[in-house]
Amino acid sequence: MEQLHINTSSKQYSVWIGDDIRYKVSEYIPTPLQQKVSSVLIITDDQVAPLYLQDVKNGLSNRFEVFEYIVPAGEQSKSFQQYYDIQTYALEQGLDRHSLVIALGGGVIGDLAGFVAATYMRGVPFIQVPTTLLAHDSSVGGKVGINHPLGKNMIGAFHQPEAVVYDPTVFKSLPLHEWRSGFAEAIKHSLIWDAQLYSWLQDHIDDFSNIKGELAEQLLLRSIAVKAAVVSEDEKENGIRAILNFGHTLGHAIEKELGYGKMTHGEAVAVGMIFAMRLSEQYYDISLPIDEVKAWLTKLGYETDIPVELDPNQLVHTMKKDKKAQKGVIRMVLMKELGRVEVVSVDEEPIKELLLKSIKGE
Amino acid sequence: MEQLHINTSSKQYSVWIGDDIRYKVSEYIPTPLQQKVSSVLIITDDQVAPLYLQDVKNGLSNRFEVFEYIVPAGEQSKSFQQYYDIQTYALEQGLDRHSLVIALGGGVIGDLAGFVAATYMRGVPFIQVPTTLLAHDSSVGGKVGINHPLGKNMIGAFHQPEAVVYDPTVFKSLPLHEWRSGFAEAIKHSLIWDAQLYSWLQDHIDDFSNIKGELAEQLLLRSIAVKAAVVSEDEKENGIRAILNFGHTLGHAIEKELGYGKMTHGEAVAVGMIFAMRLSEQYYDISLPIDEVKAWLTKLGYETDIPVELDPNQLVHTMKKDKKAQKGVIRMVLMKELGRVEVVSVDEEPIKELLLKSIKGE
Repeated sequence: MEQLHINTSSKQYSVWIGDDIRYKVSEYIPTPLQQKVSSVLIITDDQVAPLYLQDVKNGLSNRFEVFEYIVPAGEQSKSFQQYYDIQTYALEQGLDRHSLVIALGGGVIGDLAGFVAATYMRGVPFIQVPTTLLAHDSSVGGKVGINHPLGKNMIGAFHQPEAVVYDPTVFKSLPLHEWRSGFAEAIKHSLIWDAQLYSWLQDHIDDFSNIKGELAEQLLLRSIAVKAAVVSEDEKENGIRAILNFGHTLGHAIEKELGYGKMTHGEAVAVGMIFAMRLSEQYYDISLPIDEVKAWLTKLGYETDIPVELDPNQLVHTMKKDKKAQKGVIRMVLMKELGRVEVVSVDEEPIKELLLKSIKGE
Repeated sequence: MEQLHINTSSKQYSVWIGDDIRYKVSEYIPTPLQQKVSSVLIITDDQVAPLYLQDVKNGLSNRFEVFEYIVPAGEQSKSFQQYYDIQTYALEQGLDRHSLVIALGGGVIGDLAGFVAATYMRGVPFIQVPTTLLAHDSSVGGKVGINHPLGKNMIGAFHQPEAVVYDPTVFKSLPLHEWRSGFAEAIKHSLIWDAQLYSWLQDHIDDFSNIKGELAEQLLLRSIAVKAAVVSEDEKENGIRAILNFGHTLGHAIEKELGYGKMTHGEAVAVGMIFAMRLSEQYYDISLPIDEVKAWLTKLGYETDIPVELDPNQLVHTMKKDKKAQKGVIRMVLMKELGRVEVVSVDEEPIKELLLKSIKGE
């Protein structure tokens, strides 16, 4: 059982990591909040519900009135309609400003439920109960939101949870591509911030089947610690937080151009990270351990080249429309050395050239 | 020209009050923000647009690319559809995280545009340019939001503006009931917080036609100062901020039961304040200057009795569903003496009895 304190300018809260703690979520509600909670709304999806909803409910219904709302699994549930429907349900059930929202699921549920919580009656508390490895990244930091047909995560807020209750035993139900999606963010945290973590990950993880118990707890703890350190310095993404975007500028563009769901988020980010490292070598005229990272990623089952069916011009076009772009100029996180990165504005041409090379497998 | 500093835990900003400052809004954008702004979106309504949109635009378009979005005037524009449509427009026009939203209008526009700003790409800066007296209340404090068919202001956020640019010369276009709606909040501020302000208002204002120039500036300054003092202590309405609800528990219920638009917000609050004072006399067994306040309100054209067509049971039912109610218990702001109030839980029965009396004109 591990506990990690998160400090942001707007809130302090704990991430709890431990086997089987999903059965007793009510114990991790901070004491002052426990006394105020009038009712609980668990928001989850139809893949998670049959597996874990009852476990979580049992640990809450002895103390609170518990409501549940189940959305279809998948990115398409981060929609205005779903957002509106949950608000309607909450109003119909008489939930008030002291109701507590529990986000039980992966990143989609965390984002959707978190945005409901951020805006229901101008904000109610919520707790993240992640069920995927990928959610170790999204559940900390307070970014919540939904998609607009014109772009992912375009509507949202910063709303920190009251606690994150992380039970790694649920990972046993994760398919391989979900392991890869989540683990890519752990690798990212090591690459941008913590060279020691990079070595530790390389030493301990070359196969997803052995990640459980102590190893799973340590993986979560150390990876989340990086996220927490960055977010503590910059809650609202005005500065350093942008480095978390390493591998994401291209990764997002790949996801979009392939069509969402063809490649998982983390798998696309893995491709993006290799690309960012290659661009960094050019940009700074340095040498980085790209082959080593590629070999490790490949062993873990990741693709590391850009899918051949994608068009460099179209990818660049999409990268220029990224939320982090400024007046159409592409902003990328580049690596100066392992564990140290910075955000820079990059010209289109070198990006296009390198994209073309990478697509050709050069 | 007056300047008032507002300090909340999340932001510091200024309220600027002065004749004709709507022509030069760009001068009141805080300097660090000015350098970052990529474009400006003015959100206004179709009653305000013909009167003042061009004035505001002229003062911005020399420095920024300016977009505009005009919604139909009135409460029905605080809808999900309108909220979504503005987000769509902003995305189509390529507005980014450094775009600035200007809310040009009354409370409806401030709430709607503020909620768009609070959630567009997880939050962009916005500036309030109020065009009504009532907005002196809503434009300070950061409460933004939209309505749900099941309740007003049910979906929203706390999002503080970067500045409030208040030009009282626009009041000349206000109809009488809008004067009353806004002035009720000024009276409220005096009653809950500042007995000297109460005397000053009584001494200087018994007719809306003379409120301009120095008098208008002082009125805004002193009334907003109360709001600012309360909000500074309690940005997120966890405690003392709830006293701003004086007159509102019943006021909201009257608006809802009559049907929105039959009586202005402030006019309903005026009735609610007299009722709250009467209930306070009973509750604390004290004597308050109710007749004096009533006489003044009547002179200014307000109704002070509850509309005869309303049913006390239905009003109580609605009061119990108020956002501030806790588990169905009515919370009201009661007055201990002029300028001093507190929030208390009140039983239904005395409320019903007094409602019945008031409706009968007793």
